Amino acid sequence: MNDANPLQKLIAQLARLPGLGPRSARRVALSLMKKPEVTLRPLAEALIAVADGMKRCASCGNLDVQDPCPVCADPKRDRGMICVIEDVGDLWAMERSGAYQGLYHVLGGTLSALEGVGPSQLRIAPLVRRVAGSGGAPVREVILALNATLEGQTTAHYVAEQLAAYPVAVTRLAHGLPVGGELDYLDDGTLTAALTARQKTG
Amino acid sequence: MNDANPLQKLIAQLARLPGLGPRSARRVALSLMKKPEVTLRPLAEALIAVADGMKRCASCGNLDVQDPCPVCADPKRDRGMICVIEDVGDLWAMERSGAYQGLYHVLGGTLSALEGVGPSQLRIAPLVRRVAGSGGAPVREVILALNATLEGQTTAHYVAEQLAAYPVAVTRLAHGLPVGGELDYLDDGTLTAALTARQKTG
Repeated sequence: MNDANPLQKLIAQLARLPGLGPRSARRVALSLMKKPEVTLRPLAEALIAVADGMKRCASCGNLDVQDPCPVCADPKRDRGMICVIEDVGDLWAMERSGAYQGLYHVLGGTLSALEGVGPSQLRIAPLVRRVAGSGGAPVREVILALNATLEGQTTAHYVAEQLAAYPVAVTRLAHGLPVGGELDYLDDGTLTAALTARQKTG
Repeated sequence: MNDANPLQKLIAQLARLPGLGPRSARRVALSLMKKPEVTLRPLAEALIAVADGMKRCASCGNLDVQDPCPVCADPKRDRGMICVIEDVGDLWAMERSGAYQGLYHVLGGTLSALEGVGPSQLRIAPLVRRVAGSGGAPVREVILALNATLEGQTTAHYVAEQLAAYPVAVTRLAHGLPVGGELDYLDDGTLTAALTARQKTG
């Protein structure tokens, strides 16, 4: 089995996917080869369907097979709220929670001096234009749902600054004890944040 | 996002792969969508190349894109030895070790009363025919490299019985301490096997 072998090529492709290594890629390839007609071909077809149909939503930056994306196209969503997230995966996470009924704005990453990502590489200017309003319902609130990492918080701070001139409430996700979490296993930073943001019961 | 969505279909397909669940399938789909031309399409093409070209070796049962498979076609392999394995993955594992220079025979599973797998569902009869010899070099040795599970050992016993009538040495892989293994972490069965099969040093 050399590298020109289609099988080895497939394993090399699979091994590059996140969460897979050479060993698990071989296992996946093997399981696909055992039932090619029910697993291998349908997977190839699903990949091609996504590759052919994929579009980036011109409004929010979501990746989907339609533009505007299903969220932006949904007339039931609250157009007065925009939730700013780093990435499409974060949008999916928010949607799974089912707790949010507004629109989104995908930044496409975070500011990072180390990796040379500046404001112009992120979709910050389009967000400001959306808030400034080009017709439609005015935006009442922008929720900064960025990761609680140094880069995420730096980006949140920068975005908040850019929006300061507009009559819009800029909020961020609360920090605190995760649901089901135990104090003993919590890091100091989270515990401090949870204590600072303590709320009255009842 | 409903189930008719190509993206959801792709995630559902990915989630069925061994070692992936819904969460990791979403992560894989997302990473594919970020760079469709360098990851998504090449993966789809690699899958189709394998689906189109895949063949089962008529002699040993190996899965590859050529028949006879590269092992059976290699003139440098020792045709007097046949290593019997459960599955193509085991063949790959043997090849990676680089310690074996003979041919293989893939059984395609193990005998299992529970799952209703009888001798006729496995490639046992073709193995007996290979050993009985239909021309070519005579087979000197059959190595039963089946998993050290109950089913594997039952199958090894059955295959050995089927080959008893032929003038061929039937061997099995040694049981013992894994290389790099520590006694303290070893199960009792392996320790007993390693003690029983102890060898003189030097």
